[in-house]
Amino acid sequence: MRTVGVALLGLGTVGAGAARILLEQRDRIARRVGLSLELRHVVVRNPEKHRVSAVPLPLQTNDLERVCRDPKVEIAVELWGGVSPAREAILKLLEAGKDIVTANKALLAECGPELFDRAHQLGRSIAFEASVGGGIPIIAALSESLAANQITSVSGILNGTSNYILTEMTEHGESYATALSRAQELGFAELDPSLDVNGTDAAQKLAILAQLAFGSRVSTNQIVRHGIDRLDAADVRYAGELGYTIKLLATAKLTNDSIELRVARTLVRQHTPLAEVRGAYNAIRVVGDAVGDTLFYGRGAGQMPTASAVVADIIDTALGRAQLTFRTLRLWTDPDESALPIAPPDQIHGRYYLHFQAEDRPGVLAQITRVLGEHDISIASVIQHEADENHAAAAVPLVIMSHNAVEAKMQNAVQEIDSLQCVRPPSVCMRVEG
Amino acid sequence: MRTVGVALLGLGTVGAGAARILLEQRDRIARRVGLSLELRHVVVRNPEKHRVSAVPLPLQTNDLERVCRDPKVEIAVELWGGVSPAREAILKLLEAGKDIVTANKALLAECGPELFDRAHQLGRSIAFEASVGGGIPIIAALSESLAANQITSVSGILNGTSNYILTEMTEHGESYATALSRAQELGFAELDPSLDVNGTDAAQKLAILAQLAFGSRVSTNQIVRHGIDRLDAADVRYAGELGYTIKLLATAKLTNDSIELRVARTLVRQHTPLAEVRGAYNAIRVVGDAVGDTLFYGRGAGQMPTASAVVADIIDTALGRAQLTFRTLRLWTDPDESALPIAPPDQIHGRYYLHFQAEDRPGVLAQITRVLGEHDISIASVIQHEADENHAAAAVPLVIMSHNAVEAKMQNAVQEIDSLQCVRPPSVCMRVEG
Repeated sequence: MRTVGVALLGLGTVGAGAARILLEQRDRIARRVGLSLELRHVVVRNPEKHRVSAVPLPLQTNDLERVCRDPKVEIAVELWGGVSPAREAILKLLEAGKDIVTANKALLAECGPELFDRAHQLGRSIAFEASVGGGIPIIAALSESLAANQITSVSGILNGTSNYILTEMTEHGESYATALSRAQELGFAELDPSLDVNGTDAAQKLAILAQLAFGSRVSTNQIVRHGIDRLDAADVRYAGELGYTIKLLATAKLTNDSIELRVARTLVRQHTPLAEVRGAYNAIRVVGDAVGDTLFYGRGAGQMPTASAVVADIIDTALGRAQLTFRTLRLWTDPDESALPIAPPDQIHGRYYLHFQAEDRPGVLAQITRVLGEHDISIASVIQHEADENHAAAAVPLVIMSHNAVEAKMQNAVQEIDSLQCVRPPSVCMRVEG
Repeated sequence: MRTVGVALLGLGTVGAGAARILLEQRDRIARRVGLSLELRHVVVRNPEKHRVSAVPLPLQTNDLERVCRDPKVEIAVELWGGVSPAREAILKLLEAGKDIVTANKALLAECGPELFDRAHQLGRSIAFEASVGGGIPIIAALSESLAANQITSVSGILNGTSNYILTEMTEHGESYATALSRAQELGFAELDPSLDVNGTDAAQKLAILAQLAFGSRVSTNQIVRHGIDRLDAADVRYAGELGYTIKLLATAKLTNDSIELRVARTLVRQHTPLAEVRGAYNAIRVVGDAVGDTLFYGRGAGQMPTASAVVADIIDTALGRAQLTFRTLRLWTDPDESALPIAPPDQIHGRYYLHFQAEDRPGVLAQITRVLGEHDISIASVIQHEADENHAAAAVPLVIMSHNAVEAKMQNAVQEIDSLQCVRPPSVCMRVEG
């Protein structure tokens, strides 16, 4: 049986999980795939820190060169996270002839093209299943299993922290602040949860998925982001009354030869598969022209789910499968004339949920609906609630669901309504799906 | 760019779909994977029949030898279905040096080991993603993406016809007969739906999944089957009252070093992902020791979803990935000492739903519960409904949910209760999940 040497960079949560599988399940994996995976080094910045870890001390080193020089190491697994020094380490390892496995979405979203090009030049591969959706094999699905399809849309819940908070708000009527504290207590949210709740983390993952699905180079900056950090419990309640659940949805969709991209709090119809994703789970819906509707669901983060994806990539690379797949991805890093542009707001259509705080006097509804009409926005339903105790007595919540409308016109209409004297800005505007 | 010759055996629903993708999407696939797939032959039994199909007549032949002799054909795709002559054709094609793609679950469930062994001997591969779950990449998930895991359970909705019927019964309170007619009208059920509704189709698919997940040879005959063909609308209603939805669930589960196997109508807790699978969709839940809970959802049958999986397998084989995967499956066809036995009923535990038709007189509940108690079955809840108009006036439905109980004891208890004078057999006994 062939033995394949592996080195890990990083012994944090995911690193320790991957090390545990490699050390404890070596025989089982060997029986299963016919290869013996040998963990030969774990590069840690401070070896003192990991004295009591499951990884024997002699395997630990703070010297990346040891990995580069060891001819028995065929696969290096980057689990440091962040852009630097992960980027430099991967370039060095590629030059030393190692194939790469990484879980680093931030790095791929920022430096993916550079790293991919370099790997192609050197005849090496980079596998990155663990960078999106934890243990959910969404990278394999898009780059292999659904290869016969023109993908028409990828949309999903890509951030478990936000989904945990939204689930708490939906099921227990909690405020954003209370739900966040609870998530922090239980370890589902970090002390500084900004990147999770403002949509950045989901946008980094979406950039990777959109590139795989549509072959276009997408950078995180090109993705419009509306996080959940200013979400009002009242909107969660009103959405529920209308038959919807609010989710932080990351969407990449083919629309008239361009790609619509967005990470936004979105109303999703209750009892559809995405609406039913609760707690810290992730789910990605992929629609293809042949396969139709598919959904991939699982834990989107956490030690062992992510380690499951990392070790699957190690196995794929050891067997030579990852290299064959990576070669097919080459086409996407070359300048591709057929690559699709990103859709501007005047080409994006959708239904919208609007929530205005309006003065409680005659003629106000007429003023607001007149502005909507002037922007070609027709109204599907209106709910005028009694004044909310959280708001000044003179304002009442006015909730409007639109029919299909153009995004750019909707933005202009809301801006104009916000400037009306009878309305207290900012108004809430969210997309509606399903 | 390398050109890879492909031959299809069969031009039925799935064959026509696969031909369409190969002919119409050849350029797109070439751009995506860097290979040109050339459809060179379609073997049909009666060429006259397909005069008006999308496949040009010169490509059609009724001579399998033409495919075997054509050195440009590297991949042959068997879409005839059934055991014979598909089995003989595949053996001949393997001997002619062709790699095989097949969607034939019945053949694999029956002759899988023979065909796999022969392919290994000849250094060829067999890819079979389309044999289970239509376009859902469940074979890739189990054999590649989740390879780092000890799978602990695979359970799912593997038959779209039954799920369509159950959804109609659940959502519209229809009887089995009415729901079946509707499914037949809409083309979701065949004129003779037996294999779909009695669990045979799902059992064939489960045999394949269980083999992949646990490495044990499983034949369809070893799988206990309780279809939906005698399901009473009343049970669908009672289950709903208790917070459950009835699904035809195929389950393979690791239990005390053995594998529990079953295809059975099962009570699944409402609002869980499997309970929410509606209509003709399929979904498979896979639990692994590292990845935790995952779910794969999509159209489990139909022309283009299945063709999507077939063409993905063709691409995988053309790139050489399928061969690498198939080599790792070798271990499972060799006699494996660590292969797990199939659990007998006295080692299976679970919760059960029981529905007795009992005489409406004092002491009956005591008689029934005494028998349950004697078999160590403790009761979680009882619902005694008023007499159902469909049943003789003297009988009332008695619905009991058990706590965890041993399957063998439950079977004995129900048999004993059915022999009581105060009970009208046969009683209903279903597993409860979640």
